[in-house]
Amino acid sequence: MDAVKRIEQTLSTAIEQTLTASVAQASGAGCPSRLAAALRYAVFPGGARLRPQLTLAVACACSEEHPAIADSAAAAIELLHCGSLVHDDLPCFDDAPIRRGKASLHSAFGERLAVLVGDALIVMAFETLVRGCAAAPHRLAALITILGRGAGCPAGIIAGQAWECEPVAPLAEYQRAKTGALFAAATMAGAAAAGAEPGPWRTLGEKLGEAYQVADDIRDVASDEAELGKPVGRDAILGRPSAAREMGLDGAIAHLNKLIAEAIASIPECSGAAGLRAVIEMQTQRFLPASLAKRAAA
Amino acid sequence: MDAVKRIEQTLSTAIEQTLTASVAQASGAGCPSRLAAALRYAVFPGGARLRPQLTLAVACACSEEHPAIADSAAAAIELLHCGSLVHDDLPCFDDAPIRRGKASLHSAFGERLAVLVGDALIVMAFETLVRGCAAAPHRLAALITILGRGAGCPAGIIAGQAWECEPVAPLAEYQRAKTGALFAAATMAGAAAAGAEPGPWRTLGEKLGEAYQVADDIRDVASDEAELGKPVGRDAILGRPSAAREMGLDGAIAHLNKLIAEAIASIPECSGAAGLRAVIEMQTQRFLPASLAKRAAA
Repeated sequence: MDAVKRIEQTLSTAIEQTLTASVAQASGAGCPSRLAAALRYAVFPGGARLRPQLTLAVACACSEEHPAIADSAAAAIELLHCGSLVHDDLPCFDDAPIRRGKASLHSAFGERLAVLVGDALIVMAFETLVRGCAAAPHRLAALITILGRGAGCPAGIIAGQAWECEPVAPLAEYQRAKTGALFAAATMAGAAAAGAEPGPWRTLGEKLGEAYQVADDIRDVASDEAELGKPVGRDAILGRPSAAREMGLDGAIAHLNKLIAEAIASIPECSGAAGLRAVIEMQTQRFLPASLAKRAAA
Repeated sequence: MDAVKRIEQTLSTAIEQTLTASVAQASGAGCPSRLAAALRYAVFPGGARLRPQLTLAVACACSEEHPAIADSAAAAIELLHCGSLVHDDLPCFDDAPIRRGKASLHSAFGERLAVLVGDALIVMAFETLVRGCAAAPHRLAALITILGRGAGCPAGIIAGQAWECEPVAPLAEYQRAKTGALFAAATMAGAAAAGAEPGPWRTLGEKLGEAYQVADDIRDVASDEAELGKPVGRDAILGRPSAAREMGLDGAIAHLNKLIAEAIASIPECSGAAGLRAVIEMQTQRFLPASLAKRAAA
């Protein structure tokens, strides 16, 4: 196994362990049993866990001394992400029957538990941060501020989703909030967890978020459901802004590659910059499924 | 104006100011305009603001030295409460057309914004705490833990609402989570904001929460819509557990009075206990509308 793959596996283990502890805590004594089952269903098995891996990779690159803080920040970011997926899939939004290759949460547990699970995951994110910061409580305020900004209003993922309720949604602002905000929170939280200045890490997250959104738009027009784990062609049906439809497939792929290059170029100077670059290159190679990645490389 | 009324007005001004600042922050630059309008609509004008008044009254009784912390804790509790009302009113739960005497949020802004506003208010609660604790960041972790427990899982108001999704819901556990948990968070947060030990303040909140829930059940069977500001008779229609239906109206009123007496008797020793008792007596007198309060006093 090469070094980068090894790093990735270590990060992955830390993320799953912290998420497991958070879900166990939330579904402890007194929790209604269907709610507990639905919480587990929303978090496990996960998707690519891109955002929390990014948090941990940045924290490592900034030489963090308290792994528990970075682990909790990473898990908190993922809990917010899982919560947003559950709510985005609701009948009033995407009405998505499938997510991560299985029935969406409201399809499996009903709409009411889907609303409550999304709510609970937001609360759990902040509780997870508190537990992780026990050894260094002076880092807590900055991390909550970063996560709150990435998740909430005026320009986090909740606000991003709300652009779909406006008569006109400017594409750049919509994507920056809907996807970029939580990626930016992921990189900034990684830095803050390690005691580094978070500001310089915003661009990396924003560019990766934008790239991920473009890749998502491309997959939606050019992938198939088996590859994607959810239905394709939804953006057109839902009338959502889409880079792939605006720029055409080749234009969108070129734009994606440019964004990834800009992301990597923006990495601030730090002791572990080389390792971080390698992790990000590996992650972004998986943004597109194999059939499209070939076209991107051509 | 008597002293207690004066205290109540002072508390009320502090609560509205902090809520105004939180909503202004969340609907700042970049916020989609319908989301911003819906956030204001969910928070203003408020209901009785019972929970945040309780937080401030307890903080005063514990001689708090940083009013900003108590104000932020009170506002955070109210934001969580407002968020839960918006989600509880959704078509998949109560399908309530009216709330606080005006159209419910989803009736006025649509279901999608109602989901997002509820989410945003949870995030805003934690952001508000961070801002309030700027002068004493060592109080932040305890406050987040208290609020998280009151709001989330396994036994906060979200879990309480989830009991409605179980085949069998034990009445005591359901009410303790659905209503008691946030009242307990309100009193405990007041103590923690003032640097006092929160544990001894749990009973006061739990008893008041239980009393409030019993009063709510009584109002639902014996009030009219104009008095209540929302439709009556919903518990029976929705098949929800109800003290008034289980104990009969007079039994429920006797139970309510007993709970209020137990709440007041549980107030821990502190410098401002007498003032706090007076505020709580005034608040609980308003739990039932005038027509029922007479019957309760008889």
